[in-house]
Formats: sequence, structure tokens, C-alpha cells
Amino acid sequence: MNEFYSQENHGPYLEYDLGDFDTENGDVIKHCKLTYATFGTLNAEKNNVIVLTVMFSGTNKAMEKYVGENLALDPKKYFIVIPNQLGNGLSTSPNNADASQRGANFPALTIGDDVRAQYRLLTEEFGITGIELVVGWSMGAQQTYEWCVRHPELVKRAAPIAGTAIVTPHNALFVDLYSEALRSDTAWDNGNYTDSAQVSEGLKRLGHVFALMGLSTEFYRLRMWEKLGFNSVEELMAGFWEAWFAPMDPNVLLSMAGKWKAGDVTQHTGTNLETTLGNIRAKVFVMPFEEDMMFPVKDCEVEQQLIPNSELRPIPTLLGHFGMLGLFEEDFDFINDTLGDLLKS
Amino acid sequence: MNEFYSQENHGPYLEYDLGDFDTENGDVIKHCKLTYATFGTLNAEKNNVIVLTVMFSGTNKAMEKYVGENLALDPKKYFIVIPNQLGNGLSTSPNNADASQRGANFPALTIGDDVRAQYRLLTEEFGITGIELVVGWSMGAQQTYEWCVRHPELVKRAAPIAGTAIVTPHNALFVDLYSEALRSDTAWDNGNYTDSAQVSEGLKRLGHVFALMGLSTEFYRLRMWEKLGFNSVEELMAGFWEAWFAPMDPNVLLSMAGKWKAGDVTQHTGTNLETTLGNIRAKVFVMPFEEDMMFPVKDCEVEQQLIPNSELRPIPTLLGHFGMLGLFEEDFDFINDTLGDLLKS
Repeated sequence: MNEFYSQENHGPYLEYDLGDFDTENGDVIKHCKLTYATFGTLNAEKNNVIVLTVMFSGTNKAMEKYVGENLALDPKKYFIVIPNQLGNGLSTSPNNADASQRGANFPALTIGDDVRAQYRLLTEEFGITGIELVVGWSMGAQQTYEWCVRHPELVKRAAPIAGTAIVTPHNALFVDLYSEALRSDTAWDNGNYTDSAQVSEGLKRLGHVFALMGLSTEFYRLRMWEKLGFNSVEELMAGFWEAWFAPMDPNVLLSMAGKWKAGDVTQHTGTNLETTLGNIRAKVFVMPFEEDMMFPVKDCEVEQQLIPNSELRPIPTLLGHFGMLGLFEEDFDFINDTLGDLLKS
Repeated sequence: MNEFYSQENHGPYLEYDLGDFDTENGDVIKHCKLTYATFGTLNAEKNNVIVLTVMFSGTNKAMEKYVGENLALDPKKYFIVIPNQLGNGLSTSPNNADASQRGANFPALTIGDDVRAQYRLLTEEFGITGIELVVGWSMGAQQTYEWCVRHPELVKRAAPIAGTAIVTPHNALFVDLYSEALRSDTAWDNGNYTDSAQVSEGLKRLGHVFALMGLSTEFYRLRMWEKLGFNSVEELMAGFWEAWFAPMDPNVLLSMAGKWKAGDVTQHTGTNLETTLGNIRAKVFVMPFEEDMMFPVKDCEVEQQLIPNSELRPIPTLLGHFGMLGLFEEDFDFINDTLGDLLKS
């Protein structure tokens, strides 16, 4: 049992019982639970809803920074739901599934499965009638696009931050590389380790791949680790990148990685990307980070140009992909302000 | 014995005997041989010399494409020397050193050692009195900068292509990552494998890191692998990246990687980068690739601005770092033309 995935570390969060959940790949997740956190109160019309989706290796907790009174995502005004990904360690996942589906036996999921589960939570449990905004970062952006494509009737606004509607060939290589780095640990043993901590070397190697791609070359050139309180790149590596992944479960991470790599909104529509994105009805702010090596502005811009009611709103940070963590106050403020603009539009 | 490192594959090349070679780290390479190829004829003044330095994982053969009649590097006009790096498999290296220094026992070298060895070849063997141009790509650019700094009296012109005078923090992470990928193969066994081919999995993983960083995100977005004759990214990976490194010796690659990561022209001068580059007397064209993820234009530009008689001449390709291979004719032509401009200036 990996104690990292607990109410103590990520709560409070709630649990919605999906029953036996049919996946898009044709499997059944037994006794499937979707965990989530909420903030604010659902109004009488049940349409003051914001859905804040979660990134790779993250949980509801990682996104809560953007929720607060006097922020764009204001719980006094909105009913804000942060659903955890299936497979992320808190929702039904390799670490907590039915004994027959645990660890290496956990079925492969899709971004579509996440949105299908989230839709059921929002409609069955809360009876929502509209969504003011779907917003998410990285894999959260994948879910955001999937929401727009699957439920144009519900989603009024969307902000995919530093992510794409369809995985790019280069981004897929990145997923392969960090997955291979993790699996290269002999203790990985095809997912049949008995304790996550045995795979500590693989988890470190995964962190090293993120260190290369998760910030920007400008961040490193300008020694901005000092602004984050680290005295050297070595300290940044140990204290940030290795420490981030160290407590996590490899099978959990690889469950998410599989969804990431397969991310593709056209799987649902069965048509091409132009038509699929062209049918989005939501007002969309596409928000890449200017120096992002994982999701370059150009990769995001070509998708934005296919969405009728959309704007490209690049976030001017040198932090790169991990600008979303709000480690620099100006990045947090820019993102918050831009979401505020979108909610007012 | 790894048959890849042979006259058959990389020749013809010659050998200069350096005797027992004192390294900058305080070791002695026994019976050290510097291998090299030459083109053209040394003039009576012994100053029509071009030095074409070699990149990581490369040999003289990889650079010979840029030498030819009617090209900038014209052997009818110049005496062109392509010295192999020490440790690159052809010069004295982990695979062919004295038995006591073979494999994991090969001493760590520096870029300075390469230039010291090359200087001895050029002065002792050929008695050269001047160098019209030093040019090299990637680790070859490191050697080029080192030449400019150590021998301002000799080097008239220099073209560091896609490389830096001092390794950047981000670039050092890249070296660490591909080195770790190679070492993650259990057959690596701290360098004590008996046959390179045993480490085939590590060599593949090394190739995967280069696949992520060696081309550009635009290359992948625009499916430019098709222009290279591959039908898919998978074919590109197997037929190019994995195939490139497959025949090589891991200890040879790691010998070069160690030099790369330690690359720093100020180690020789004992002063700061501003003063060190400020003292360069050569006319220098700094030539980064516009979409290079390993050596972004900005990282090269900040060094160029410290060199008195220099120009920034970015190479406008979408291929990224491996634009140097000349896989696209227009990249080859641009590089050749720019070197021609430099030689005329």
C-alpha cells in the first residue's frame, strides 16, 4: 500500500461510485470510483459549474491553488469541481483497484474514459445543466478539449493550458522516453514490484527526463533555479524533480502516460481534426507557455486556428511547461487574469 | 574487438603518434595515437590550413561531405585536416587503448586535450604556420572555440556550428540524460561488458534521447521524416536513431560525453567567459540552427556577443541540430555558402 495516495496528502476529496465501468478499450473497471473535490455551491439552475481537470502525476490538490475568493475561479460565485483522473492513484487505479485488476493488471484507459466518468458525476450526482468553464493544464488540457468535443451543448467556455487535442509525434516520443526511463529500473519487473519504493531509481530517471523538458532552456540559462530557492541545478534536481516523483506509484504513472500518448479527440468523432475542432461551440482560450519545450506554442496554435470561437493567449513565462505551478507569482497572476477575462467574455 | 571502428568503415585515415600523452586531468594515455584524414596539399608557407573538427559519436568520415572541389572547403585550395577526437574509437580510445587503460579504465579527457593533441599534429608533423579556418559542429564547435582561445596567433577564422564555448546547465542535463539512458542497461555493468553488442538496449535508449532533442518539434509536426524517406516515426527511430548508435562502443560514447559535459574554455584561461571570449582574435561566424533544441540560438547568441570580430549566422532549417548531416540539400548549401562567405572575409 502506497500511503502517498491518501486523504491526508490530497484531501479532502469525495468519491463517486461508477459501478462497473466499461472502458473505451473494451475492458471493465470493477467497482470503479471517481474521486473529486468541490468548492462553492451549485446554484438553483445547476449551471454555475467550473470543471478543473488534473495533469499527469497530479491530483485535485495540485490544482486547488487556482481556486479562491477574489480569484477567477471564485467559489463564492461558482461550483468548482476538480475530478481526479481515473488511474491517478486516488480514483480507481493500479494501486487500489479490485485485486484482480491491481498493478500490472490494470486496464488501459483513455482521456475519453475520464470525460465519460466526469460527465456521469456531474449529471448523475449533481444534475448539472451547463458548464461555465472547463480548464486544465497539460493532460488537463487533453480532458478540456475532450469535454468541448463531446459535450458542445454543455461547455460554454474552455481553456486548454499547455496541452493539445491530439498528441503530436514529438510529444508522443517524450511520453515514450519518460516511460522507458521508469521501466528501465530492473525492479520495475513489468509492473510486478511489491512496493513503489523499490523502483526509486526508475522514478528518479523519470524525473530527469522531466527536468530536461519541463522547464525552459532560458530558465536554465538565466539560473532561475535561484529564484526558486535552489543553490544549484543538482539541488533543483534532487529537491524538485526527483522529490516530485519519488513517492509515486510507477503503475499509476504509466496508466496516466498511456492515456496521454493515446490522446486524440478524433477517436470519438470518427472524423478528422479540422472537422472535430471546427464543431466546438465553446469560447476557447488556447493558452500555451511561451518557452514550453513539451507543448510549443506552434503546436497549440495550429489547433487553435481550427476552433471557430477561439483566441491564442500565450503565457509569457520563462519557466516553461511548469509555469502552471505558479512558482512565479507573475505567472500565476497572468493565468488567473486570463481565466478571469474568459469568464467575463 | 568492435569492428565498427576500422579503416574499412571510416578510412582512409592516418595516425600520428603522440607518445605517452599527459592529459589535463593529470593522467597519462599510454602510446597515444591521434587519427586524422587530410585533403589537399599544404602550401609552401604552410598556412593554407583548414581544421574540421568532429562531433560526438562521429569520425572524420561524417564530416567529409563538406570537403570537395567547388565547395567552400576546397582541397584544391586548402590543406584540410579532420582530426578524430581522442576517445572516439579511431584515435586512442577505450576500445583500442593499452590493455591497462581499456574499457572502463580509460582516463577522462577534456576538449582541451583534443586541441592540444591536434596542435601537436599540425605543428610537429606538418609545421603549419597559420590556420585559415577552424570549423566544427556540436562537440566540433567546442573544439573550435577551444582552438580560438588557445591559439589566437594561429586561427584566422572560426565557425562554431551549433555548439557552445561553455556547456550550458540545460545542455549538461541532456548529456547526463543520454549517458544515464546508456548506463541503465544492466549489461553495461559499469563499463565492464565484453562486447558492445551486449549493451544494445542501452544504445537504443541513448538513441531515443537523441530522437527527442536532435531534430525539432517543427520537424515532427510537419512529418518531415517522409522527406527523409521514412514512412513513420517508428521507422525513423529504428532506421535512423537506433541504427546510428547500434554499432558503437558504449565506453567510447561515454568518453566523448564526459568531455562534452566538461566543455569550458575558461578552464584554460583561468578567467571569466567575457574576458576569455573577448580575447579571441579570429573572425568568427557563430552558426546555430534555428530550431535546435540542444543548442538554442539564444545560448549561442550570448556567446557570440562576447566575441569582438564575430557575426551571428543562424541556419534556417527545421531539421534542428542534425541539420549538419546535410540530409536536406538546402541546409548543406546554406552551411557551405556561409563558410564560403567567411573564407572570403
